Amino acid sequence: MFGSLPTRLYINDVVTRDGFQNERSFIPTDEKISLINDLSRSGLAKIEVTSFTSPKAIPALADAETVMKGIDREPGVIYTALVPNIRGAERALSCNIDEINLVMSMSETHNLSNLRMPRENSFAQLAEVIRMADLHHLPVNVSLSTVFGCPMEGQVEPAEVYRWIERFSALPVRGVTLCDTTGMANPAQVFQISETVRRQFPHLEVTLHFHNTRGMALANAIAAVQAGVISFDASLGGLGGCPYAPGATGNVCTEDLVHMFHAIGCETGVDLARLLAATARLPEIVNHDVPSHLLKAGPADRRYAEPTFVAELRARNWDTA
Amino acid sequence: MFGSLPTRLYINDVVTRDGFQNERSFIPTDEKISLINDLSRSGLAKIEVTSFTSPKAIPALADAETVMKGIDREPGVIYTALVPNIRGAERALSCNIDEINLVMSMSETHNLSNLRMPRENSFAQLAEVIRMADLHHLPVNVSLSTVFGCPMEGQVEPAEVYRWIERFSALPVRGVTLCDTTGMANPAQVFQISETVRRQFPHLEVTLHFHNTRGMALANAIAAVQAGVISFDASLGGLGGCPYAPGATGNVCTEDLVHMFHAIGCETGVDLARLLAATARLPEIVNHDVPSHLLKAGPADRRYAEPTFVAELRARNWDTA
Repeated sequence: MFGSLPTRLYINDVVTRDGFQNERSFIPTDEKISLINDLSRSGLAKIEVTSFTSPKAIPALADAETVMKGIDREPGVIYTALVPNIRGAERALSCNIDEINLVMSMSETHNLSNLRMPRENSFAQLAEVIRMADLHHLPVNVSLSTVFGCPMEGQVEPAEVYRWIERFSALPVRGVTLCDTTGMANPAQVFQISETVRRQFPHLEVTLHFHNTRGMALANAIAAVQAGVISFDASLGGLGGCPYAPGATGNVCTEDLVHMFHAIGCETGVDLARLLAATARLPEIVNHDVPSHLLKAGPADRRYAEPTFVAELRARNWDTA
Repeated sequence: MFGSLPTRLYINDVVTRDGFQNERSFIPTDEKISLINDLSRSGLAKIEVTSFTSPKAIPALADAETVMKGIDREPGVIYTALVPNIRGAERALSCNIDEINLVMSMSETHNLSNLRMPRENSFAQLAEVIRMADLHHLPVNVSLSTVFGCPMEGQVEPAEVYRWIERFSALPVRGVTLCDTTGMANPAQVFQISETVRRQFPHLEVTLHFHNTRGMALANAIAAVQAGVISFDASLGGLGGCPYAPGATGNVCTEDLVHMFHAIGCETGVDLARLLAATARLPEIVNHDVPSHLLKAGPADRRYAEPTFVAELRARNWDTA
């Protein structure tokens, strides 16, 4: 069975954080602000604007405060940002942010590689941020990396993922994002894990975050929708590479995802034409091609003129005997 | 529900026909033969070797007989070729082919554009080929173009598709291929149409043929599998462009499709490592990059070494209090 699908899906665009963080050259602050303003007006549910990380660690996003304070806040859009620690949460609060997004990995090796500490220490640090955010009535989402596999350890036990979600769900957390950080997930696995997380943690918002590294991002998204998931991360133009697969495709492309969701009859609130107008500006902003299918091909309802000889063929007196 | 999936799927590689037909420069005959021999040994169920079309119409495949007679025929592999008319069928028969593949379009405008005659005339011509093939006990498959939409007419009525399949099913035909010729299909539509065709024509083999023009090829393949389809066309490296979307991705990539099918627990009989070795030779053969995800990223079970600092971090005496 294809299943009965949710009628309304919610898209969180992460291009100005996850995408720009992976760019070689610094994207000028006014370019970031202008792009976020375009995204705000396209009907997206949420925008991950930036990251309140140390400017030394991620110079690409050293302008976090200027960007957050410079953008036009569209009513109804949730503006969120990545926050690694208490200091980052304070910076985010100073910008009157709507939500913060924390991150830790489900694989010990990936957590050590990426966050340079064991998962247990990450959890302790994030728990502290969550309690501090709660005092300020600031909603928190936790992004869990390598849920569907780790490029160093390989398989990640689903039971291990559920155990960490259990621990976070005991804290004042709004939702969790299940991240396929390096594009290892497959649709059967996505359905199984998404369905279990939704069933076991009905009070948590569950978001899925896919990379198209092995071409399966849209197939995985459909599997998640079939499991009842209604929230998705995506990146305009598909920006945001995977350091473990140089040259490979990055995050699932927002416009490709929105286009597919509309095609299967799910609303997203996004104006695809507006979104594509923003995508069309991307190659100039980042100074390279972007892996967007829609930007090249246009939507499926794009029409082409018939060749001129067809009219003549139609008029001919055909004999089919 | 994700649904219970078939355990065995069958892949028909079309790169040397659909792929090479779309290449600007002529692929030398010995390169074609060598690649087909590699594909034969990779465990594919079927290979669409070439097209017995007029060499004037498709110079890229002018060496059809030489290729068909030059390849090693692996037992168990079905060798097929595209045949437009009686003359083509005679040429195919002279090469002792296992099956022939005929083609017509579900959209009148696309049929006029592509085959330069009305669908009714195409049907009459193909019916003649089918009767001739039957006399020689040669199995016939019919590929139906633009089943999921026409780039000129737009929507194609499913009832119209079923009507043409009904007419073909009254003839001695082994199977039909439902082709998403220009990448307009979406997973909900694919599930619906595949499920109906399988139910209404249980004696026909049903194959699905996807293009990744808008990134949905693998999502569409999963939807078809969920509808019980077990046979798929695919093209090594994803070669085979779409004339209506210049620069866009071509056919669904064989190695990406096989990789996903294995990941969700469906067998294909294909040795992915052997297939990827063949893909790795493609860029040199066609003299340009190919849109294969697997070639860039490797399979999901590819492992990376952890950074050297991780061992030191592990050994540290961490305090989580």
